[in-house]
Amino acid sequence: MIIDKLYKEVQAKGNVCIGLDTHLDYIPEDIKLKYKDVDEIIFRFNKKIIDCTEDITAIYKLQIAYYEAYGIKGLIAYKKTLEYLRSLKALTIGDIKRGDIQSTADMYAKGHFEGDFEVDFITLNPYMGFDSITPYFKYLDEGNKGIFVLLRTSNPGAKDIEYLDVNGEKLYYHIGNKLEELGTKYMGQFGYSLIGGVVGGTHTDEAIEIRERYKNMYFLIPGYGAQGAKGQDVNLYLNNGNGGVVNSSRGIITAYKKHEDGIGNFEKYTREAVFSMREDIGYEK
Amino acid sequence: MIIDKLYKEVQAKGNVCIGLDTHLDYIPEDIKLKYKDVDEIIFRFNKKIIDCTEDITAIYKLQIAYYEAYGIKGLIAYKKTLEYLRSLKALTIGDIKRGDIQSTADMYAKGHFEGDFEVDFITLNPYMGFDSITPYFKYLDEGNKGIFVLLRTSNPGAKDIEYLDVNGEKLYYHIGNKLEELGTKYMGQFGYSLIGGVVGGTHTDEAIEIRERYKNMYFLIPGYGAQGAKGQDVNLYLNNGNGGVVNSSRGIITAYKKHEDGIGNFEKYTREAVFSMREDIGYEK
Repeated sequence: MIIDKLYKEVQAKGNVCIGLDTHLDYIPEDIKLKYKDVDEIIFRFNKKIIDCTEDITAIYKLQIAYYEAYGIKGLIAYKKTLEYLRSLKALTIGDIKRGDIQSTADMYAKGHFEGDFEVDFITLNPYMGFDSITPYFKYLDEGNKGIFVLLRTSNPGAKDIEYLDVNGEKLYYHIGNKLEELGTKYMGQFGYSLIGGVVGGTHTDEAIEIRERYKNMYFLIPGYGAQGAKGQDVNLYLNNGNGGVVNSSRGIITAYKKHEDGIGNFEKYTREAVFSMREDIGYEK
Repeated sequence: MIIDKLYKEVQAKGNVCIGLDTHLDYIPEDIKLKYKDVDEIIFRFNKKIIDCTEDITAIYKLQIAYYEAYGIKGLIAYKKTLEYLRSLKALTIGDIKRGDIQSTADMYAKGHFEGDFEVDFITLNPYMGFDSITPYFKYLDEGNKGIFVLLRTSNPGAKDIEYLDVNGEKLYYHIGNKLEELGTKYMGQFGYSLIGGVVGGTHTDEAIEIRERYKNMYFLIPGYGAQGAKGQDVNLYLNNGNGGVVNSSRGIITAYKKHEDGIGNFEKYTREAVFSMREDIGYEK
């Protein structure tokens, strides 16, 4: 099962999930001069990151908004990056946060679990209800695909809706409880199911409660680094080491920018950023 | 302001919003034989629908999932269809239901309010909070773009989250109240703001309450036809005629399939479906 593969990758390589949220501003001039098309510029930059981090990175997450922003060419870069990751047998999350009625969800599932944009995991938004989540289950049945559903996100606005009190509990518990129950049908061999949750590392209140309550749920944890979550914060969600992956994007893919000799030592500084994050969040090989 | 343009289009042409949710199964064989590439097949079908309905249709809504499902070629069809609609000065909704943190929302805004995928209105999902909505406001400031935020959707699962009781009121009111307030800064000349709401026509309980409470809000009303909402149901949301557009997709774009001589009389049956819906929902020219 794909969640077991992720578990083993984390065990071997650490909990780092690199977010390939590639803004053109992040890309060194030499790549921009060498390649003419935007799709090739973005892909070549992503490849450079992947090539120097693949042995120390559990999974790569592509935030599709960064690709949609550049139109068709951006999505060609998205496709090329996923093809390359697949050729390396590296795991991928399509951070698409879709959520829609069943007939539409069927089309999103086709779009992101097959064809040009195929990934191993996608993120989903539960606002429209559980019938906006269950259409993806036919892919879970085969064991090769997984989902991460938004519970409590890393942005300040998370408090507006996700934290609202529903029958004495926060709204995200209402969603988490149901997902934990649905996950029992899709359990892998290490105690985690194909239905994971997105839990932002920026809020640590109730971290222990969330981790204990959702034992079956593997977590995708955004918010580390640029958004403010610290290693000790996100560690609370990791279940003694392997119960989640922690995403960092800018902190890693723009690490080279923090050094005067960054462009000449791109690989070195990028790797250092991954090693330093891996240690900070408490990974022990 | 773009909301005034929509208001005037509805006044002149009726409340019908045609949903170009174009599944390959919906497309007649002659188009599939004539054009080789999927993008051209989908675009040519859409163009055929548009050409025979443009004078009686207020706005076209493209559900992007149907295009993502066919990968890069699908999105080329999406782009071509939008370009064609723009050339006719027809109004467009990108039904993308995005919702994400601010830096990501900035990229989605760039992707769907500019460039290849530019539309006049987009739909947004509020689950992550109001800071996942406000990044789009810089486009509203200029008056040329608008948003429709999910309040109460048309699927049965709407009851799972959207209907939850928060301080004695359903969750969607909590969101609607805030949006109505935010909308006061973006008012057009006919009493509606650039911040609209998605309210499914399949549920009619509290329809009068919703319409009265959100006076500034123009509604995008899905659920008519294939999903079960009737003309008298959706009429409750229209504010005596002009306070919303009602989406229908399959009911119109596959209307030709209901007749043995459908392919030869494609335009006739498609137009009849629009006229009949327009009358059913109470439009009076």
